[in-house]
Amino acid sequence: MPQATAYAIDSPTGRFSRTTITRRDPGPTEVLFDIAFAGICHSDIHTARGEWGPAKYPLVPGHELAGIVREVGAEVTGFAVGDRVGVGCFVDSCGECDNCRAGEEQFCDGPGSTIWTYNALGRDGLPTAGGYSTCITVEQDYLCRIPDSIPLQQAAPLLCAGITLYSPLKRWGAAPGKRVAIVGMGGLGHMGVQIAAAMGAEVAVISQTRSKEADGRRFGATEYYAVSEPGTLRSLARQFDLIVSTVSGDQNLNGLINCLKTGGALVDVGLPEHPVTLKLGGLVSQRRVLAGSQIGGIAETQEMLDFCAEHGLAAQVEVIGGEDINDAYDKVVASQVRYRFVIDTSTFTD
Amino acid sequence: MPQATAYAIDSPTGRFSRTTITRRDPGPTEVLFDIAFAGICHSDIHTARGEWGPAKYPLVPGHELAGIVREVGAEVTGFAVGDRVGVGCFVDSCGECDNCRAGEEQFCDGPGSTIWTYNALGRDGLPTAGGYSTCITVEQDYLCRIPDSIPLQQAAPLLCAGITLYSPLKRWGAAPGKRVAIVGMGGLGHMGVQIAAAMGAEVAVISQTRSKEADGRRFGATEYYAVSEPGTLRSLARQFDLIVSTVSGDQNLNGLINCLKTGGALVDVGLPEHPVTLKLGGLVSQRRVLAGSQIGGIAETQEMLDFCAEHGLAAQVEVIGGEDINDAYDKVVASQVRYRFVIDTSTFTD
Repeated sequence: MPQATAYAIDSPTGRFSRTTITRRDPGPTEVLFDIAFAGICHSDIHTARGEWGPAKYPLVPGHELAGIVREVGAEVTGFAVGDRVGVGCFVDSCGECDNCRAGEEQFCDGPGSTIWTYNALGRDGLPTAGGYSTCITVEQDYLCRIPDSIPLQQAAPLLCAGITLYSPLKRWGAAPGKRVAIVGMGGLGHMGVQIAAAMGAEVAVISQTRSKEADGRRFGATEYYAVSEPGTLRSLARQFDLIVSTVSGDQNLNGLINCLKTGGALVDVGLPEHPVTLKLGGLVSQRRVLAGSQIGGIAETQEMLDFCAEHGLAAQVEVIGGEDINDAYDKVVASQVRYRFVIDTSTFTD
Repeated sequence: MPQATAYAIDSPTGRFSRTTITRRDPGPTEVLFDIAFAGICHSDIHTARGEWGPAKYPLVPGHELAGIVREVGAEVTGFAVGDRVGVGCFVDSCGECDNCRAGEEQFCDGPGSTIWTYNALGRDGLPTAGGYSTCITVEQDYLCRIPDSIPLQQAAPLLCAGITLYSPLKRWGAAPGKRVAIVGMGGLGHMGVQIAAAMGAEVAVISQTRSKEADGRRFGATEYYAVSEPGTLRSLARQFDLIVSTVSGDQNLNGLINCLKTGGALVDVGLPEHPVTLKLGGLVSQRRVLAGSQIGGIAETQEMLDFCAEHGLAAQVEVIGGEDINDAYDKVVASQVRYRFVIDTSTFTD
């Protein structure tokens, strides 16, 4: 069976260290691929540090994987050795429930539910292990094809950060003639600005400060606002058709809702630790919408990758080695990354 | 100028008493009509009692008006003497802003905003006075036609309660194959059940108790749930495509959100006094929607009236006289009405 070099963490307070894990030989419909790059998502950190409940240690995180196919099962039709492929937040689902049939495998209602790329149990009953490793075996239906024009290291973060923004922007109508605000300019937000602009919308960034303003404008924003400046949200009352908030920390939700036009939608993709206090009048008085969104299905993820290739979009990344993961985690928490750390697995065998 | 007998209240703690008010002679594009019936909406009570801030006393409430045209201005084309007409929550707007042009006059952004049927200032700078009166003069574009098949006393509540439920049910997809829950079985809810059932949805009522279950089933619900019975909401987890909540009091919003399927929408049309505590995870984890809605525009209100006529729907009402208004208010607050009090203005001249 294929061996992978991986970086694992043993406890919520532990540090990542190099180890070896075993992957499955690819079954008839499975693909074994060599992971070239894996993005570091903030949710890796929440999970590894036990902030979302007890994790299954030893834990190999990573749900933004990009690489090259090494081997395919006998019945694999969609992929061949040498293909550029990616895997996002999940590697399996029942395939038969209403949500799976609707292409929303991330909401699988089947007996095993959606099987997440790490910190879950696979169909074989063994713990899943993610992208901080040199190879992985995945059912072909849960793989995406990475267009040739997108460098693998810049494609990896699209598998989570990209689809997390693409899905709500498309669903809630980012388009020419629409004013769209992206709240937060991190790993998610910097993709949201690019995608919304490519969809033709007029894009504003609502950030904490102006420190990333030049980048925001380079990504396609034509307006940039800092909530640290008093009165910012009040000055934006009833301005936007759509706001996508990527903020996980406490935020002024009622203030953001008031920035929506009549009938506008605020879509939240962050997961704040605490419940929020909501004034329903802000929704009722202007027929507004507050919605949640979470990644996307495989077909929509492929559509997003193709959209990014067509429009020349990709994540802006800082490539690091396996030994840098511990430091990178601290920097992500401190918002000191522009805009996604991506682990180069070729460093695992130094 | 036309004189109207009316019932007015002088202070938040006052009682309604009979008085006389003056209406405008109809201008070229205005219609003067004799009000036959006026519904009592809970928001009349909130306004009259100063619960939504200081009101303009003396106050003549009433925004569910049904009657017969007495006189039309020289340029009125859409209505003739003797026509059956109705007026809802507003009597004027700018007609030129984006929202007015889109047929959403209730969200008018013009300089004078939407002019509400009472407790507002009209274009003439005079306070508006509502339906607890024997006649009113209204610009023709803000009148609806009441189909012949709907008795006027049962049509009056449609102008607010009917459109308040019709609009979100239509917008958010009540239709065959969809499971819809109506929360609350009062003046709003009893219309929601009828309309959702007529739209072809499978309708459930979520009420406080089972006291109105027989009525709910008669209105078209096939399921009836009481939240006073422990575990009710938990047993309904992920059951509904759409939930419309008509509850103004404190409610278990997070519990209701968990009753939505993936991608489902909870639409709130009530205005709770206090902010609610919302767990955003309930929205994000299943791509759910929390939306607000508020009445509808004139064209949609007419569409609702025609829909009700086509499907044989109307409000279930208790007709009262002008002297009964004070008692009726107490009964509405105590939920002792089945399902809307309607004032018969012919009693004003006894």
